[in-house]
Amino acid sequence: MSRIQAPPDEAQGNLTDRLLAGLPAEAVLIDPDVTASYANDMASFCPSGAPAVVVLPRTVEQVQHVMRTATELRVPVVPQGARTGLSGAANASEGCIVLSLTKMDRILEINPVDRIAVVEPGVINAALSRAVNEHGLYYPPDPSSWEMCTIGGNIGTASGGLCCVKYGVTAEYVLGLDVVLADGRLMSTGRRTAKGVAGYDMTRLFVGSEGSLGIVVRAVLALKPQPPQQLVLAAEFASAAAACDAVCRIMKTEGRGALPQKGGGGRRAGGHVPSLLELMDRTTVKAVNDLAHMGLPETTEALLLVAFDTPDPAADLAAVGALCEAAGATQVVPADDAAESEMLLQGRRLSLTALEAVKGTTMIDDVCVPRSRLGEMLDGIEQIAGKYQLTIGVCAHAGDGNTHPTVCFDAGDADESRRARESFDEIMALGLRLGGTITGEHGVGVLKKEWLAREIGPVGVEMQRAVKQVFDPLGILNPGKLF
Amino acid sequence: MSRIQAPPDEAQGNLTDRLLAGLPAEAVLIDPDVTASYANDMASFCPSGAPAVVVLPRTVEQVQHVMRTATELRVPVVPQGARTGLSGAANASEGCIVLSLTKMDRILEINPVDRIAVVEPGVINAALSRAVNEHGLYYPPDPSSWEMCTIGGNIGTASGGLCCVKYGVTAEYVLGLDVVLADGRLMSTGRRTAKGVAGYDMTRLFVGSEGSLGIVVRAVLALKPQPPQQLVLAAEFASAAAACDAVCRIMKTEGRGALPQKGGGGRRAGGHVPSLLELMDRTTVKAVNDLAHMGLPETTEALLLVAFDTPDPAADLAAVGALCEAAGATQVVPADDAAESEMLLQGRRLSLTALEAVKGTTMIDDVCVPRSRLGEMLDGIEQIAGKYQLTIGVCAHAGDGNTHPTVCFDAGDADESRRARESFDEIMALGLRLGGTITGEHGVGVLKKEWLAREIGPVGVEMQRAVKQVFDPLGILNPGKLF
Repeated sequence: MSRIQAPPDEAQGNLTDRLLAGLPAEAVLIDPDVTASYANDMASFCPSGAPAVVVLPRTVEQVQHVMRTATELRVPVVPQGARTGLSGAANASEGCIVLSLTKMDRILEINPVDRIAVVEPGVINAALSRAVNEHGLYYPPDPSSWEMCTIGGNIGTASGGLCCVKYGVTAEYVLGLDVVLADGRLMSTGRRTAKGVAGYDMTRLFVGSEGSLGIVVRAVLALKPQPPQQLVLAAEFASAAAACDAVCRIMKTEGRGALPQKGGGGRRAGGHVPSLLELMDRTTVKAVNDLAHMGLPETTEALLLVAFDTPDPAADLAAVGALCEAAGATQVVPADDAAESEMLLQGRRLSLTALEAVKGTTMIDDVCVPRSRLGEMLDGIEQIAGKYQLTIGVCAHAGDGNTHPTVCFDAGDADESRRARESFDEIMALGLRLGGTITGEHGVGVLKKEWLAREIGPVGVEMQRAVKQVFDPLGILNPGKLF
Repeated sequence: MSRIQAPPDEAQGNLTDRLLAGLPAEAVLIDPDVTASYANDMASFCPSGAPAVVVLPRTVEQVQHVMRTATELRVPVVPQGARTGLSGAANASEGCIVLSLTKMDRILEINPVDRIAVVEPGVINAALSRAVNEHGLYYPPDPSSWEMCTIGGNIGTASGGLCCVKYGVTAEYVLGLDVVLADGRLMSTGRRTAKGVAGYDMTRLFVGSEGSLGIVVRAVLALKPQPPQQLVLAAEFASAAAACDAVCRIMKTEGRGALPQKGGGGRRAGGHVPSLLELMDRTTVKAVNDLAHMGLPETTEALLLVAFDTPDPAADLAAVGALCEAAGATQVVPADDAAESEMLLQGRRLSLTALEAVKGTTMIDDVCVPRSRLGEMLDGIEQIAGKYQLTIGVCAHAGDGNTHPTVCFDAGDADESRRARESFDEIMALGLRLGGTITGEHGVGVLKKEWLAREIGPVGVEMQRAVKQVFDPLGILNPGKLF
């Protein structure tokens, strides 16, 4: 297309010609200005290279052609969705084929009896969510980027979201996959039935594998009936510790001694199942107010947001409100309706954007600890922020113990950038000490690959590398990621 | 111990001596009368060999010693739980070490804030269920054998049960594992947090791997808050087709046009989430009556059992009862309380035992189809029973589309046995034609290994074998199973 602008060398020409043998011209981009725009996802501090070519296949056969070509020419392939990832897993490596699945964006089937959808990988999360809603169905996984991110990307990173405390992560909704292997062969995994145990669970092996084992070209997804509209409560606390105590009181189950209260739908002293349980610290609250003038309470040290999508959410919120007060909440504000609920969530949804505005750049961490250790985690993050003299805002999927400590810094300030990077590492070390993981839902990518080995140990790394070798003996699938 | 009774040959002596170097004498059984009793699980038509030795370790180190010994001497190892499996996956191979995990039966931790339990593999399912109930927690997976079977066995076969239509299978409750590899090294997988995506999902690879990849010695399990007591409804139908139509009406979600009814806790026309949705055909009902004189309605062609553990189960049952009537139910009987509910379930729980009493022997199949194809599946099974002149009783986890067609035959009648075997294969072929799987929850083992290849295809088999090779390069882990 743009050979005059950027004459490819012989290898590039060979690669492009071979790709064009099985792809239409408009699906093969080689203009360096264009291909450069595919080099990165949304992570900070993750190096990337210049792609040799970007391909945009529309069919499974075209993906197979790309992989056969890559295998023959030994060219690395970096699969991409909407590049909203936060770990550099979709970053291009030098001279690679970027394989963008965004044009394979058809919803192939929605079945309200079997409660499944069959989709291509480029379907936008929000598009699927809306389409299944029309059938009274619900696709829970809701990463912040849900209006942009693709189902294929969600599968690659095993994405989470606000819904996870009740509904779990993407992995729990993937029943079966069609995958193009490194050599271009097609493999089907899993099933379209509610249950199935025929052989090893290869489906789950691909979920979260960050494009390093094969290219997902079709997915069978499990759906749930659409729940009632959720209702939200906001609770303010004078300390992060008190807010974390409230989280524990809400989630803790009680033994036989503590009978459920009569009426109110079987609610009990604890052991609730909220549809959302989020925390914002003072730094985050202030950042949101500065950005969007939302009038959130800036004197509070921590704001909890709790929601229920149960048959009687008001009664559940009343019970949880009482638990928040017992934990020392200074104010508890239940929403009266869906509109008020949405307003309360708006602030949470803006958190990362707002924190980015504080100093221009952020490093967003994703450490998940057992929820019983959440208080220690927040306390430790505050100490790390003090030690490195940094602004670190914390928003958290508190019900899951999944924190997103977000280091706000000026990328033009070399010393502050160094401190940001060091504090980031220290936060991960803290998470591991508390029995947690370095990544709850964002993945390893480039950003955390040194840390993966610290978490899973040498035997774990050896076995994971050996599995990678099975699927990608030439090492052409998203090289330099994960390990 | 019993060397006088059964003098081991040199190899046997060498193996036994080596095992005794790291295991106490009472943990090493070599009396052939004793070891022979460990040769089989509960599957019919599955060959087994005579174990050389049965070991009963109590610690992780002892398991490591067994695996190191097996690797050095190239002796196959067959891991076993309670041997209640139905696919021959725990059957001994000739000259193997049977590695029984039944003595590693400690519950190490129950945490009501993090909602997890940490257990050894030999813990009995019912023992765990009762222990967590004391903390207001619920471990859902409930295979029929739950009073006998072990958590390790449940993990090995990815067991299901009656709860799955709402709560899913064992796989969904396994967060992390400690696994002794074939060479005796210890590997930890997964996490103890609610979420985590650090590297490939090795945990799920082990769940359902039937002991062919490593020995699970510890598991971190996810728990749920104990739901309210479920209430059961029984509905009688004049045809299996009508009962299957009712299943579809209950499970089918409705679009925006069909608003939830006001009141009654957000219940709607369809899209219900029952905690149990079971089907028994006339053959099964009659067998249960013959065995236990339960007075179930023998004139009915199909009996559906539906339960809810929601805040207001009576209202949910009323809505579902109306759907059953719309599908042609001849009678709908909701239970008034927990005791009546338990009576209704009793018949279902006795089904397999009752069918076994019909002709002395049964082959229990485990074909799962999309629930929208359940009617075709039952119709096809009836035709197969007619063609082979066999009694085939069907009980099914209807909400999951998971059928257990159970061929009743006289094992002393060679012709009937042959027809039983042929009909069994034909039922699996039918399941695959309907978009189903050859095994919803019982596993592949020895019984279905020829069928696994038909389901997952040559590429699938090749990649699964390659994964097996990574973990078990010498082929000593449960050889002859799965592939």
